[in-house]
Amino acid sequence: MSALPEEAFRPALEGAAALARQLRVDSIRCTARAGSGHPTSSLSAADLMAVLFSRHLHYDWSRPGRPDNDHLIFSKGHASPLLYSLFKAAGVIDDRELVETYRTIGSPLQGHPTPKLPWVDVATGSLGQGLPDGVGVALAGKRLDHLDYRVWVLCGDSELAEGSVWEALDKAALYGLDNLTVIVDVNRLGQSGPTELGWDVETYRRRVEAFGCRAVVVDGHDLRRVDDALSIAERSDRPTVILAKTVKGKGVPEVEDQEGWHGKPVPREAGEAAIDALGGVTDLRVATPPRPSGPAAAPESAPRTVTLPKYELGMKVATRTAFGDALAALGARPEVVVLDGEVGNSTFTDNFKEAWPDRFFQMYISEQQMVGAAVGLSVRGYVPFAATFAAFWTRAYDFIRMAAVSQADIRLCGSHAGVEIGQDGPSQMGLEDLAALRAVHGSTVLYPSDATSAAALTAAMADLPGVSYLRTTRGAYPVLYGPGETFPVGGSKILRESAQDQVLLAGAGVTLHACLEAAQRLADRGLPARVIDLYSVKPIDAAGLSSAVHATGRRLVVAEDHYPEGGLGEAVLAALSPLYEPLRFEHLAVRDLPGSGTPKELMEAAGISADDIEAAALRLLGDHGDPRLRQP
Amino acid sequence: MSALPEEAFRPALEGAAALARQLRVDSIRCTARAGSGHPTSSLSAADLMAVLFSRHLHYDWSRPGRPDNDHLIFSKGHASPLLYSLFKAAGVIDDRELVETYRTIGSPLQGHPTPKLPWVDVATGSLGQGLPDGVGVALAGKRLDHLDYRVWVLCGDSELAEGSVWEALDKAALYGLDNLTVIVDVNRLGQSGPTELGWDVETYRRRVEAFGCRAVVVDGHDLRRVDDALSIAERSDRPTVILAKTVKGKGVPEVEDQEGWHGKPVPREAGEAAIDALGGVTDLRVATPPRPSGPAAAPESAPRTVTLPKYELGMKVATRTAFGDALAALGARPEVVVLDGEVGNSTFTDNFKEAWPDRFFQMYISEQQMVGAAVGLSVRGYVPFAATFAAFWTRAYDFIRMAAVSQADIRLCGSHAGVEIGQDGPSQMGLEDLAALRAVHGSTVLYPSDATSAAALTAAMADLPGVSYLRTTRGAYPVLYGPGETFPVGGSKILRESAQDQVLLAGAGVTLHACLEAAQRLADRGLPARVIDLYSVKPIDAAGLSSAVHATGRRLVVAEDHYPEGGLGEAVLAALSPLYEPLRFEHLAVRDLPGSGTPKELMEAAGISADDIEAAALRLLGDHGDPRLRQP
Repeated sequence: MSALPEEAFRPALEGAAALARQLRVDSIRCTARAGSGHPTSSLSAADLMAVLFSRHLHYDWSRPGRPDNDHLIFSKGHASPLLYSLFKAAGVIDDRELVETYRTIGSPLQGHPTPKLPWVDVATGSLGQGLPDGVGVALAGKRLDHLDYRVWVLCGDSELAEGSVWEALDKAALYGLDNLTVIVDVNRLGQSGPTELGWDVETYRRRVEAFGCRAVVVDGHDLRRVDDALSIAERSDRPTVILAKTVKGKGVPEVEDQEGWHGKPVPREAGEAAIDALGGVTDLRVATPPRPSGPAAAPESAPRTVTLPKYELGMKVATRTAFGDALAALGARPEVVVLDGEVGNSTFTDNFKEAWPDRFFQMYISEQQMVGAAVGLSVRGYVPFAATFAAFWTRAYDFIRMAAVSQADIRLCGSHAGVEIGQDGPSQMGLEDLAALRAVHGSTVLYPSDATSAAALTAAMADLPGVSYLRTTRGAYPVLYGPGETFPVGGSKILRESAQDQVLLAGAGVTLHACLEAAQRLADRGLPARVIDLYSVKPIDAAGLSSAVHATGRRLVVAEDHYPEGGLGEAVLAALSPLYEPLRFEHLAVRDLPGSGTPKELMEAAGISADDIEAAALRLLGDHGDPRLRQP
Repeated sequence: MSALPEEAFRPALEGAAALARQLRVDSIRCTARAGSGHPTSSLSAADLMAVLFSRHLHYDWSRPGRPDNDHLIFSKGHASPLLYSLFKAAGVIDDRELVETYRTIGSPLQGHPTPKLPWVDVATGSLGQGLPDGVGVALAGKRLDHLDYRVWVLCGDSELAEGSVWEALDKAALYGLDNLTVIVDVNRLGQSGPTELGWDVETYRRRVEAFGCRAVVVDGHDLRRVDDALSIAERSDRPTVILAKTVKGKGVPEVEDQEGWHGKPVPREAGEAAIDALGGVTDLRVATPPRPSGPAAAPESAPRTVTLPKYELGMKVATRTAFGDALAALGARPEVVVLDGEVGNSTFTDNFKEAWPDRFFQMYISEQQMVGAAVGLSVRGYVPFAATFAAFWTRAYDFIRMAAVSQADIRLCGSHAGVEIGQDGPSQMGLEDLAALRAVHGSTVLYPSDATSAAALTAAMADLPGVSYLRTTRGAYPVLYGPGETFPVGGSKILRESAQDQVLLAGAGVTLHACLEAAQRLADRGLPARVIDLYSVKPIDAAGLSSAVHATGRRLVVAEDHYPEGGLGEAVLAALSPLYEPLRFEHLAVRDLPGSGTPKELMEAAGISADDIEAAALRLLGDHGDPRLRQP
């Protein structure tokens, strides 16, 4: 250990033991008062955290944003009573807040930790995610910040059944993250019974070592051994996983190592007796002195000049190509980092890799870890973009959902959207991605139709809060917009209009090109149609859409290369729902399970081609038989 | 090996070598003709599959449904040219179909395999899924069918980066699936470059062994060694993973072991030269004699008497409880099996476990493997139900999406939906699940409000095709329906009505109870409201809804415990979109990120409580100030 200020030195056994007693007492108290929560899962890890806090953690509680602070992530988020008890020991919350507000409305001391608390980096509670997030933070420390902070992740043993944990350890080893220490609280009991491996820490050890990390097995209640293990981790040249054999409910004899006590306050009498036996309520304050080295500079965030690519009108360019071009241009901003799921030659993150190799991280085919890394990098102030096929973001949907709970700013690009991809078939077609990403809290969903807008929206994403998603198309289509055009998030574009328009054709991505073709054919029939580019799917331009609907006789065709549920069509209906006017609406979407074929064949088979849009417009126009209907 | 019909005996080296040559030739030819596809990924595995097919696979091609047939799953679905070339060698497709229709519209020979072909069990193409599915098939064989068939899964090396692969191997070992053989084609090259571990088969070996499986390392082009390895697997008392070191593009010198050839036909001249060198086009037929043992009986599927639980009107029962009760009752049908994600005491799959322990499978906290196992069990004709918290189905969304491409019949239950769960906070709240599950192709989404309907819909799911999803609520609410009531999928229920109704209140699950309370208050104000139970979210009862909307002055409040996008509100708008009438619509949904609190507080904070529904109805009724608006 490096030199610490004197007051932080304390005998490991006595000081940490006293802290452990307080953490147990407080975990029992706050859950008893709340009437819910996970005291037994906190009690098993109390000794581990007491030693970490007393002897190894470096953290300036007055400045949670200080760049060289360590990071402590509770991947077992249900042990929040223990985490908040640590915060009390750090002096940043007081006893009253802990005991009286835990799990109550309005309190930042939620059932599972979220970054509403400034000392919490990421929301946890969906198991197997805190560790992947921590890998992202450690990656930032090792490869970008070049700071000495350490990342400490507390895992439960149940969550080691999640594949994402093994994706995370694999990437931790790959990137040599010796600044990462994982502490596994092997208390052998899950929610509904014994875990798969129980106290078989040797099997865990073999797995951890096979995945390239150092494994240290300890008795998690032997403070000296725990202290030694943490010291080994600090000196390790690899990520370290401390496999700590513990007893669930440790400190409350009535529930120790018993099934049936997960997620329940301990019985009142047993709790009171345990509190007495542990020495009653105390108010120890523990120093976690910041690292002696001065904080290095935070990543520069001053805007740099980004020169976006320019495309000639009419030139055929895929939006995924424009995304890659824009991403490479955005690399001029030193905080921009890119993650790839081994498909960079398809998504065109390869362009960034070539230009800025030091800020490009290959996650191979592990989409969950890719999002975890993005979240972790965002914790350190970076601006992560991650890309894979639109279909494969479904693999990481829980991580994306949790990124929103973390209020992390991450940017995802999904290429190869829809049946337009053609021959590869339905397994590779993103057809649910708009629904899934729209439903993420606070998300932005963008779906450009041409290269100019794709590049502009990619650039815009760098400054968007929350989870933002860009959907790109495999094939090359004509550039529709000149380089001067702007594409505000929440906006739309009218691409074709006249005062006589009788129907509105709305699309985004590939279907916008089909709308334009259909409009031309309708015009040739003497039926002028307006075309709107809904590149901003969420937020959608409700005002622009309403106005266009009004101007076109309230006849609207929406065409999308997506299943009908939750995508563009329903977004449009929701936007128009305050209209209080009758709407003639045709929704063209992919309704049958597609197969392989050419893009054109598959769009026709799905009923989202120019022919289909034209036919739908004609239906709305009363089979072009009723002249009254043609009046806007 | 057991005795095979004489014609199937052939020298391993010569017969399999000739087959391997044909498989290579055909893989080159069909992709060349299609102009796309993955020949190089097929060439690396051709020797492996040739030996398997010639010497180890038992399959009656005339009866793909024969219970004792082996199962061959290409987890590396992009090697479909190789799979279809095997089908040619089996004599079930002809050369013309293979070469002329591969990847063309209407052909079952899609870019990635799907069960449109009777010899394909599951759709693959999203990597890391075929193996989890195969674990499900092997689980059926070992624990339920008690048949000798073997499950052979061909994996790529890139996909070993997916955590789901490790979830699968862990469960394979846990359940002692010695009938499962995984063959990993370690060709060291992924789509965009070298894989993370390249040809480091020793690291793979350590991982496989640490996860409880037997590992056998071989040169994947040495037919004798491959044959030996497959024999070892057949005799193994554990699941076996054959780690076969191979060369991508093997057989076409110009592309062998070269980057840049993933997913591309080989150049014409190189392909033609390779075909010549391999002996040209042949039409070998390979026998894969069925196992000598007579087929055992398939699982009984005759309907048994299922006596559903009954609940008294007004009694407070959680829908999750009713799900568990009904599931236990459904166990009377011997084909019903249940999978748990270590939360059976919350979802109440525990009820089934107690009643039918032999058909209950604990998957621990690995939701991806849980869906994979469900899909695999469905392949063998079982009726799987799997349950976890609604929020955690997001973890397996890619698997659910692919189950739909597989056209598998699986049943999912998501408990603890929405902010109603209260204190545990947002990480545990399913708030995106309706959007995600609605967007799955061919899915059914059910959301009962009371115990009677929950039990009835659980029972109905047993006979539904495709992916069906039941959303249940944590808290106990009054039983609304008597035991005689029926709940057709696609139906709805009017719970309160009069000829004077001026507004329609629509809910499902917990919000239906809030609608009923709001309707009572509105009635007390002299403003009669109709209440509709939209328990069938997909398909939704468009006719019933339209009729109720017409009868209530086209004033509609929809309240849902879900984010606004893609859930009940948008389903209602889509259902009413053909209406062509002005609709006064209020959509109450969870718009802010929730925290912890009591269920009541959180529903109020989200604006989906009875108070909010009443207020929304009053807004629709013109601030209850305009008497004209009160006329229906």
